[in-house]
Amino acid sequence: MRPKNFGPRPGKDRRPPPAKNRGKAEKIPPLPPRTKPERAESGAQWLYGLHAVQAALANSRRKLGRAVLTPRAIETLGSKLLARIRVETQDPGSIDRLLPPGAVHQGAALEAWPLKTRDLDEVISAPAGEGRRIILVLDQLSDPHNVGAILRTAAAFGVTAVVVQDRNAPPQSGALAKAASGALDLIPYVEVVNIARALDQLAERGFWRIALAGDGSTSLSEAVPAGDVALVLGSEGAGIRRLVREHCEASAFIPISKTMESLNVSNAAAIALYELRR
Amino acid sequence: MRPKNFGPRPGKDRRPPPAKNRGKAEKIPPLPPRTKPERAESGAQWLYGLHAVQAALANSRRKLGRAVLTPRAIETLGSKLLARIRVETQDPGSIDRLLPPGAVHQGAALEAWPLKTRDLDEVISAPAGEGRRIILVLDQLSDPHNVGAILRTAAAFGVTAVVVQDRNAPPQSGALAKAASGALDLIPYVEVVNIARALDQLAERGFWRIALAGDGSTSLSEAVPAGDVALVLGSEGAGIRRLVREHCEASAFIPISKTMESLNVSNAAAIALYELRR
Repeated sequence: MRPKNFGPRPGKDRRPPPAKNRGKAEKIPPLPPRTKPERAESGAQWLYGLHAVQAALANSRRKLGRAVLTPRAIETLGSKLLARIRVETQDPGSIDRLLPPGAVHQGAALEAWPLKTRDLDEVISAPAGEGRRIILVLDQLSDPHNVGAILRTAAAFGVTAVVVQDRNAPPQSGALAKAASGALDLIPYVEVVNIARALDQLAERGFWRIALAGDGSTSLSEAVPAGDVALVLGSEGAGIRRLVREHCEASAFIPISKTMESLNVSNAAAIALYELRR
Repeated sequence: MRPKNFGPRPGKDRRPPPAKNRGKAEKIPPLPPRTKPERAESGAQWLYGLHAVQAALANSRRKLGRAVLTPRAIETLGSKLLARIRVETQDPGSIDRLLPPGAVHQGAALEAWPLKTRDLDEVISAPAGEGRRIILVLDQLSDPHNVGAILRTAAAFGVTAVVVQDRNAPPQSGALAKAASGALDLIPYVEVVNIARALDQLAERGFWRIALAGDGSTSLSEAVPAGDVALVLGSEGAGIRRLVREHCEASAFIPISKTMESLNVSNAAAIALYELRR
């Protein structure tokens, strides 16, 4: 198991990046514009898009570097959120050059370190909100757009946590955070060593484990009991691994036409969450 | 209005591309491998991914050029589908170079001309299958991944047609077709000049027009009547345009947590189609 580290303590959280600018950042706030901003610090990633940047700025668990923003994005994000970090003003073209080709950044890029994993037991022990608790378990999903979109929908439907396997989860990239539209910083993202073991943990806490699969034995609306649910989703290619599926009480399908073999996994997740919240 | 052209007649459909290879293609079937395959013919696009290529090959309305395939993709697609076109065998790296960076082609690329638009009246007049008829109307959605994913889910839920505005629809690109996973060739894709006018046409044919919007006046499950439905979706940024919304009888929302502002549009479409088919 990974050490239970819930992120740096508040006092350490907002320090400037440790390399050559250390100590200087606080003294000379608005740096002169550069022709080409430097690369992200080692271990850090560029997050981009207004929602993703805003949520990361508001997340006290996030270790942040500097933000590279257009004047308009600075106005949108507001001085309160930006007070704790170093801000560079740039034009959209210079921000383009920091990011992967085609990244829709809306004038906002933020250097951020990946979030430390949360502990599953701690997340389950937290006081629950209204209605049943739902935990999404993603078995070897790799596409960052799908995982990001699933996080976004999970936050929209009040999911308690999203569980992934640490070795096979997609990195917390800018593309994932953009697709999540801020949800990566809103919903506990739990990386576990072993998905089957995590499912056992959830069963002990009273979660009913449902594998969502095209060849499931009942339709989703029939498979949903009262009470807490852990919903398992597999990758579009390989589906849910056999061992993981054996750790579920039920398998369920979403009724679709024979014309299509399957749904996109983030669309299937959205439908399942809607059904679980009805 | 565009001319009512339902695509080339069968006899003309499969002719080789009109440029320099005309006539030669049929005589010298397996061309020698090239170090770099040529570009797509003018007006044609590269479709890629096994499902997208398979569906385009099976669609008699599609004008096709040649296919560039790995030996494994040739085996998967089968000689029957491939009999009518020219096939070049290449390694995956050479196919990579034909396509946008990062395109997941699964060993299959196919030169294809965009599908001609279908006529809305003709599509509605076709005999309906089981259950209510559903038509999706996309108001200025531009992201090809979203539109592709919506087509895929629309086909999975037996939607009669997807209507877009011709000037603002995303081009029928390889990325759109890949996200649609074959659905672009399965479901009528109707390009109209004026969305509001198309909604009037649908109303005359008895469709109940629902605008899906975060600020809708009733929840979706309450807004759904018996009978045929036209469901209107807007772009994630701007939403549904005022004039288009005024041409709907009802506006409906999907109940979500206040934590998130909105759902991804393809996820919202998936939930709405699930609700309409319940």
